[in-house]
Amino acid sequence: MTDFIKDDFLLHSDRARDLYDNIARDLPIIDYHCHLDPKQIAQDVRFTNIADIWLSGDHYKWRLMRAAGIEERYITGDASPKEKFTAWAKTIGMAWGNPLYHWTALELARYFDIFEPLNESNAEEIWDKTSRILTENNMTATWFLERSDVELLCTTDDPVDDLKWHKKIADSGITKTRVLPTFRPDRAVEIGKDDFPSYIERLSAVSGMDIRTIDDVKAAISSRMDHFAEHGCKLSDHGLERIPYRRSSSDVLTDIFAKRMNGSALTDEEIEAYKTELILFCAKEYNRRGWTMQMHFGCRRNNNASLFASLGADVGGDTIAGSNDFITSLAQLMSELSEMHALPKMILYSLDPTYNAQIDTLIGCFQEGPDVMKIQHGSAWWFNDNLQGIKDQMKHLALQSYFPGFIGMLTDSRSFLSYPRHEYFRRILCDMIAESVERGEFPDDKKTITKIIRNICHDNAASYFN
Amino acid sequence: MTDFIKDDFLLHSDRARDLYDNIARDLPIIDYHCHLDPKQIAQDVRFTNIADIWLSGDHYKWRLMRAAGIEERYITGDASPKEKFTAWAKTIGMAWGNPLYHWTALELARYFDIFEPLNESNAEEIWDKTSRILTENNMTATWFLERSDVELLCTTDDPVDDLKWHKKIADSGITKTRVLPTFRPDRAVEIGKDDFPSYIERLSAVSGMDIRTIDDVKAAISSRMDHFAEHGCKLSDHGLERIPYRRSSSDVLTDIFAKRMNGSALTDEEIEAYKTELILFCAKEYNRRGWTMQMHFGCRRNNNASLFASLGADVGGDTIAGSNDFITSLAQLMSELSEMHALPKMILYSLDPTYNAQIDTLIGCFQEGPDVMKIQHGSAWWFNDNLQGIKDQMKHLALQSYFPGFIGMLTDSRSFLSYPRHEYFRRILCDMIAESVERGEFPDDKKTITKIIRNICHDNAASYFN
Amino acid sequence: MTDFIKDDFLLHSDRARDLYDNIARDLPIIDYHCHLDPKQIAQDVRFTNIADIWLSGDHYKWRLMRAAGIEERYITGDASPKEKFTAWAKTIGMAWGNPLYHWTALELARYFDIFEPLNESNAEEIWDKTSRILTENNMTATWFLERSDVELLCTTDDPVDDLKWHKKIADSGITKTRVLPTFRPDRAVEIGKDDFPSYIERLSAVSGMDIRTIDDVKAAISSRMDHFAEHGCKLSDHGLERIPYRRSSSDVLTDIFAKRMNGSALTDEEIEAYKTELILFCAKEYNRRGWTMQMHFGCRRNNNASLFASLGADVGGDTIAGSNDFITSLAQLMSELSEMHALPKMILYSLDPTYNAQIDTLIGCFQEGPDVMKIQHGSAWWFNDNLQGIKDQMKHLALQSYFPGFIGMLTDSRSFLSYPRHEYFRRILCDMIAESVERGEFPDDKKTITKIIRNICHDNAASYFN
Repeated sequence: MTDFIKDDFLLHSDRARDLYDNIARDLPIIDYHCHLDPKQIAQDVRFTNIADIWLSGDHYKWRLMRAAGIEERYITGDASPKEKFTAWAKTIGMAWGNPLYHWTALELARYFDIFEPLNESNAEEIWDKTSRILTENNMTATWFLERSDVELLCTTDDPVDDLKWHKKIADSGITKTRVLPTFRPDRAVEIGKDDFPSYIERLSAVSGMDIRTIDDVKAAISSRMDHFAEHGCKLSDHGLERIPYRRSSSDVLTDIFAKRMNGSALTDEEIEAYKTELILFCAKEYNRRGWTMQMHFGCRRNNNASLFASLGADVGGDTIAGSNDFITSLAQLMSELSEMHALPKMILYSLDPTYNAQIDTLIGCFQEGPDVMKIQHGSAWWFNDNLQGIKDQMKHLALQSYFPGFIGMLTDSRSFLSYPRHEYFRRILCDMIAESVERGEFPDDKKTITKIIRNICHDNAASYFN
Repeated sequence: MTDFIKDDFLLHSDRARDLYDNIARDLPIIDYHCHLDPKQIAQDVRFTNIADIWLSGDHYKWRLMRAAGIEERYITGDASPKEKFTAWAKTIGMAWGNPLYHWTALELARYFDIFEPLNESNAEEIWDKTSRILTENNMTATWFLERSDVELLCTTDDPVDDLKWHKKIADSGITKTRVLPTFRPDRAVEIGKDDFPSYIERLSAVSGMDIRTIDDVKAAISSRMDHFAEHGCKLSDHGLERIPYRRSSSDVLTDIFAKRMNGSALTDEEIEAYKTELILFCAKEYNRRGWTMQMHFGCRRNNNASLFASLGADVGGDTIAGSNDFITSLAQLMSELSEMHALPKMILYSLDPTYNAQIDTLIGCFQEGPDVMKIQHGSAWWFNDNLQGIKDQMKHLALQSYFPGFIGMLTDSRSFLSYPRHEYFRRILCDMIAESVERGEFPDDKKTITKIIRNICHDNAASYFN
Repeated sequence: MTDFIKDDFLLHSDRARDLYDNIARDLPIIDYHCHLDPKQIAQDVRFTNIADIWLSGDHYKWRLMRAAGIEERYITGDASPKEKFTAWAKTIGMAWGNPLYHWTALELARYFDIFEPLNESNAEEIWDKTSRILTENNMTATWFLERSDVELLCTTDDPVDDLKWHKKIADSGITKTRVLPTFRPDRAVEIGKDDFPSYIERLSAVSGMDIRTIDDVKAAISSRMDHFAEHGCKLSDHGLERIPYRRSSSDVLTDIFAKRMNGSALTDEEIEAYKTELILFCAKEYNRRGWTMQMHFGCRRNNNASLFASLGADVGGDTIAGSNDFITSLAQLMSELSEMHALPKMILYSLDPTYNAQIDTLIGCFQEGPDVMKIQHGSAWWFNDNLQGIKDQMKHLALQSYFPGFIGMLTDSRSFLSYPRHEYFRRILCDMIAESVERGEFPDDKKTITKIIRNICHDNAASYFN
């Protein structure tokens, strides 16, 4: 088969190709949100077969394989790595229109110089070739970071994490990539979850603080922020199915926390009140520290109880949540913070792509200089991280906001092979801008266009996160 | 006027035309969901004028005529068939961008060799020509099925139907098309509707069972499923404005049913509890029988009370329902079924096109081998059955799921002339896939593409429904 | 820099250019919804610098400047007009994909013969040139109306307005443009707002009626409608975050009104009941008078409390409201009116562009001859008034409805320079129709196409509003 990944992939005009080749392509990567394991970087783990990299933890691929009728044994079961890879090859080879088709092809091209698409008939050959190259090139975690020219990456970490691997990475100089933690206190916020009391115990132990009240929770969280700050943390992240906003008095909040720690069930209203209080507290702390607050919302998790029972969380049982009004509560949260002069820089991500216009008009209410795009609409997330979703997010953002201030792409990935997603994004961006010039919708002004592309691919993230 | 319907209609490249002409065009049609009247097939009714076929029952056309300012007399009133046809010609001739423009043109082209578009100025001529051809060709119900190469069609039938016309069709061999019933128990589910008690009486009479409890309802429904199964039924269908999920004890459900049969009004919660129970019961039965469960949701019916008072239901008074969270309840229904190992094959149709991404990510949570795409997102339904809606449904499906497993198009129609909708769909499909190759988004791999197109146009439906 | 605004701007084929140049371009403008100040017309105010026109009240521009990191001093603060203009030039010059980029360019082209786009580097030069031209050409309010060939414009007015400026315009003959008022009784409807009692007092004073009951409110409103009718009013407008529908008895409504006027707070249900009653009353009155009822819904206003505290309303703190079901209540309102044979002509505008399909299927339930498109889906509103939003609104409308009956564009603007928005719309319309012919989706039938374009750009509005 002839090559699939060519130099002009997704670039539909000479102008698009020029913009990509001469402006975007060689900019280093700032990956400000991912789920890489810092231990794997610190230990510089080596990968010996493509199945381990691709299929051991990637629920995107698992879902696609299940849809293709592959039996679970070849997905998360006891089949051999090679059998799993073969099942994957059979699946992806037919997966017209799925973003994994492009990602798989780009990953083979950029790390293995394989330019034809993977399918059932070349699975054996590609298995052998990738296995050989992985060994010959000694392809470790840091090899991928260097090959991908990653300037900075931010992992996602629990407040109770001691960050020892981050320290080790920084101290050892094992990689030129700067690796920073991100503060994600979901478990301290989700008071309704079963593991909340045990989590609070752990938080207590790690922070060395006796936690008896909600104020103690706050103090412990704040001390963990201090710890994260010592390791260079600049970002936080919150994952929420829906955005809470319910204000309660200090006494009521104290009672709610006590009730929960005593093992009683809380009402939905009590849960919402506690979550609101914690989120507002965190936001103020972030603002004080100059951190950026990320909010990922609109995911309904673990929908398939039998799948969850057999495999647990993060295995392909998540969906976009049902339609709901997140604007009212989010506007109230932001407005209260703004009134206190405590609104941090924020990046909002919705899993539902139909909310692009809602988000883009909401953020417009809270922008303020001297920050450029203080409140950001995050790049197309998860299910939307595809050709159409990326374009839609950018076009809506441009329509309602100041596009040259957009901080651009992130991988959100658990895999060291996902960096071509930045390439994918940059190709789409360059093609979109080139098309606008070709269609006479923006002037042929190379200087301005160069600045916009550089900003979005690299410079904005660099200055936004200092 | 020059021809409007040409060989390359909707095919925007040589590649698209090649795919359509050499792969899709001549595949037989499996129309797994329609509203054709089996009696008309069994009796092989003959049509003598185009107004009776087009305008006697088609509320899509009635709505368009009302929007165009046509008086009701020429729509559903006492005007002559030819007057109504003339009013329709005047309307459709100007209806830029409406799917009926294309459907009308395709129906004239495929059954009457008329390739110019209908409008006010050629109405008389086309009336005469179609009337002549209808008579000369003796164009009956089965003539249209044969001409359209329909291999299988599934009608939509009430559990109380005796299916005598289906039996007669099967026994008589009047058509090569296989004609099967579909089990649609909406009236047994809709406990809140006025006619529920009388419907239960009828169900009792037809099943020969004394229905005094909800368990009796289930038993009667089950016996009717047996009856449908004897006539080859493989599919069911449920129409729901919103998806219910409210679990109640057996005792409570017994009381709810008794209360309703005693003539008392039920609360919304009681109605939801009963509906949930019935739908779960039906789903388990479908799964046990290897049937597929269709769910059509998101339609708010009979919105215009004065129109309903004068003409009844299904006359053009229906709209997409308001935004609501159907994901939570649908995920709960499916999860409960999955836990019981009783999740049937399902096809989900939403009337609101903005829910494409929600549905496509939800079904991904419940796929499982060895079925390919066990849970399907049904082809663009009703108001979405148009150029943009069909493309959007397919593109979203491909982004989130395994596109080659899609079971493709259906007519959902009451008319024997609607089969060109399958042609319409196939042209859009071939053009979309060709465009992806032209744009370098999918490799030029004829073997894979052939398989995908054959699958979606015919083979998947054949194997999905056995 | 070479010209940006050229003759073929947004016209992507010779056919598109032909349609625009020979059909759409020279039709006069009917601007049936705007927020121009009739006093400025009556006094024929003169503009001396572009900052006053562009930046003194335009919150679209303010939002974009805030997003670009401009400090508030240069937006709404005490910076000089020229400083503000320079800040704007810097902002807009980079604002890829934002509709203001195109509007700014078109306004410079059509009123100042400046065809290059504004940016930081030519800001000084353009400031000087526009200042000179404003003076030399004596560019007053009526100069812009004449230059733009505005046949009719409808302002937006409160029922308590005496309409003296409208009278003066009509009597003086200062402009050939017909300037009519629009009746917008929001403040009489919004019983929950703080200023409601004082507004009722003012309404009482203006109408010369003692208002003690809800019936008195109705009588006063009706008398104000008489006053508006004397000044040629043909339209009304209602702005609503959500559509109310809650029916209550006359006694209850009487109590609600009394309770509010006594200074007590109302429940949400009481507020909704009152609003429902008032809106139904108004609708019946509009129908009786042959007026058209506009409804603008789906905006959540003043989200940023600190911005509101410092600058007030209409300063850039508004967003699309959260997802909600407006279909049920709107269908109930319309159905009740239809049953009473009192449904007025209506134009529905939603701020959320994802509701296009919902609105277009809803209006289809209520169309009735002899009016063509009696119920209209208004042109893309506010945040959607851009290249993509305008196309989307038209495409959805065409898919679900009778496109040649669409009444087309309006400016919705506070500025005399906004008339190129009609040009923008017409270019998009002509390009969209030309593209459909180029793609073989509509026949090359010049007569029909001419009629459709003329209808939508001018003739439909002329006949719809008589």
